[in-house]
Amino acid sequence: MEYIPQALSKVRANRPLVHNITNLVVMNATANALLAIVASPVMAQLEDMLKIASALVINIGTLDEHWIASVEKAVEIAGELEKPIVLDPVGAGATRLRTETALSLFDVGAVKVLRGNLSEVAALLGEHGKTWGVDSTVYEKDKAKNLATAAAKEFNTAVAVTGPVDYVSNGKETYAIYNGHELLGMVTGTGCMVTAIIGAFIAVEEPLKATVSALAIFGIAAEKASEETKYPGSFHIKLYDWLYRIDHNLIKEKAKVERIEP
Amino acid sequence: MEYIPQALSKVRANRPLVHNITNLVVMNATANALLAIVASPVMAQLEDMLKIASALVINIGTLDEHWIASVEKAVEIAGELEKPIVLDPVGAGATRLRTETALSLFDVGAVKVLRGNLSEVAALLGEHGKTWGVDSTVYEKDKAKNLATAAAKEFNTAVAVTGPVDYVSNGKETYAIYNGHELLGMVTGTGCMVTAIIGAFIAVEEPLKATVSALAIFGIAAEKASEETKYPGSFHIKLYDWLYRIDHNLIKEKAKVERIEP
Amino acid sequence: MEYIPQALSKVRANRPLVHNITNLVVMNATANALLAIVASPVMAQLEDMLKIASALVINIGTLDEHWIASVEKAVEIAGELEKPIVLDPVGAGATRLRTETALSLFDVGAVKVLRGNLSEVAALLGEHGKTWGVDSTVYEKDKAKNLATAAAKEFNTAVAVTGPVDYVSNGKETYAIYNGHELLGMVTGTGCMVTAIIGAFIAVEEPLKATVSALAIFGIAAEKASEETKYPGSFHIKLYDWLYRIDHNLIKEKAKVERIEP
Repeated sequence: MEYIPQALSKVRANRPLVHNITNLVVMNATANALLAIVASPVMAQLEDMLKIASALVINIGTLDEHWIASVEKAVEIAGELEKPIVLDPVGAGATRLRTETALSLFDVGAVKVLRGNLSEVAALLGEHGKTWGVDSTVYEKDKAKNLATAAAKEFNTAVAVTGPVDYVSNGKETYAIYNGHELLGMVTGTGCMVTAIIGAFIAVEEPLKATVSALAIFGIAAEKASEETKYPGSFHIKLYDWLYRIDHNLIKEKAKVERIEP
Repeated sequence: MEYIPQALSKVRANRPLVHNITNLVVMNATANALLAIVASPVMAQLEDMLKIASALVINIGTLDEHWIASVEKAVEIAGELEKPIVLDPVGAGATRLRTETALSLFDVGAVKVLRGNLSEVAALLGEHGKTWGVDSTVYEKDKAKNLATAAAKEFNTAVAVTGPVDYVSNGKETYAIYNGHELLGMVTGTGCMVTAIIGAFIAVEEPLKATVSALAIFGIAAEKASEETKYPGSFHIKLYDWLYRIDHNLIKEKAKVERIEP
Repeated sequence: MEYIPQALSKVRANRPLVHNITNLVVMNATANALLAIVASPVMAQLEDMLKIASALVINIGTLDEHWIASVEKAVEIAGELEKPIVLDPVGAGATRLRTETALSLFDVGAVKVLRGNLSEVAALLGEHGKTWGVDSTVYEKDKAKNLATAAAKEFNTAVAVTGPVDYVSNGKETYAIYNGHELLGMVTGTGCMVTAIIGAFIAVEEPLKATVSALAIFGIAAEKASEETKYPGSFHIKLYDWLYRIDHNLIKEKAKVERIEP
């Protein structure tokens, strides 16, 4: 997986401007995660910022009517400007509005990566997902793998179904990423952070490789952070530190990425 | 006070879903505090999330007209669904709108706990409270105790008046909690955090005990954090760590809770 | 520069209430920075809070139509109440709306300090600034100095153009502040934090000295934080610690402030 360290180098060399339309809870955390990986965050809900951005990250965590209108416009503009979109369907399945809003964003064809947990992606596929909170999943390994592949085919995008193991598929190739740490579940917004980091990588790499790279790097940073502390407050801070410290050697030593049957 | 460690165990076993309609400043901090105590936060301003929640926490820190309408609807739905509400009347007394908004939320009868500082609770009782900022109180010990009892009778809820000593009353029984640390006043949102944690405990315990338990546990976590650092940035992080680390032994060793005359 | 430690003492003695109308990304970080320097933050978007505030800080980082109307009203009220305003024109130059919104706020005459990076202040002066993200500047030393002086004359305020060296001018006197650290650029909202801290100092000192004091103190805190860590997550936390720990001796030892030709 030589492309993973190479993608990191490209991010750091280009500092891609990532435009985030994200939920209010994690704006600060997401911006700091992007800065730590050495990308440039813009968090404004203004469409004219899109012109100078390299990617658009949409997170539906705190949507309302005003927000939906704003996002639909942004998605349309991103389509016209050919800016790739990464979609995080937070809470899809928990409410009908969320599921429908997330689905409607695929219409323009600009969504290049979908990143969610099992219940969220399952809900988008029309199954009856049960979302328990917004940070947890009822996770089954084989189901996650099959879901990633099926959703990739259905939506014609790269899809990451994240959990204890992350599965990434574009419908033709599928990868499993074994990096990560359970303390990520004890800090709010870590899913949103990794979605934003995919936004940085999609600016420099094609969707499947961008997603695999971002997930592996984020997972390794979490593992390194967990070596320094076992508690969530300190882990959160060390996670930023390691997103900044991670380098080619660490990736080569720690990445656990496997190509699997689709 | 055997019920305090037991309540913590019940929270961790059940991971109650706590729906927060809170101010924009502290959303992230509140979510992380709930995760650290091992509850499940939902921060969305969407009423349909209430169906799957165990409690509703309302914090009026950054209210506007849109927000007020949204909260009034949520309170009504919580009443219908019989979900307990914990109310944090941030800045009540500082502006008429805040005072009136907070008061109006009692109408439905779903507010089970009111948690504020002396000036906020006093303002709700119709006295002329003087709010100095949103994080401070002109605190007098006896006044705080009497205020908690009077407000509990007036509003027919559990009331916590927090400060150097926290007083909790349901109008019949009153408790003093001596745990806590002055560095809590140097970090934004610590009052909001403990209100949210009351939301987690009210999902597993009756209002008075839930409030006493949450305040004692939060105060002990602050004391332990202050043993590791004397500075507010590091204290903030260690506070999350200790919300996660606190256990039965620590509660038994450190809890300073006293039943006092009502 | 005897006035710098004196200004810090006045802030800590008075704990000025600083009313922030700021962007959603940095609300929490800004409030914590104000608390760490021992001022009192209010983050509400409600005009009636202004009556009890000592200064108003306006940051246009996440503006929309609703926000603009709210800010225009706040600026008008601040003018009537003679509360000094500190303006942070985040992203001015990046979009026409931002540039025009920022400029319109000068009309009432209540803006006493403008704090931005080179491209933002340049955009306000009608030059064609190119904003690359919201946290970076295409920085040239002489241009920054001249820009601060020119903008101060044009807008009849104190102006700080911040970057590797900070330049502060009121059109008659100009100062260079050499304190700071490059890790500030790896944490979101550090520019917004220092703008808010200027808001605390303007409550106790005239605009030019308030701005110089705030920038020097913030820069020294960053230098001390960087002595303890080289990574952005930990640096962010240590920055709060050092805003709290900084004292007269540290200022005298570390301040690098120079009066230069206007």
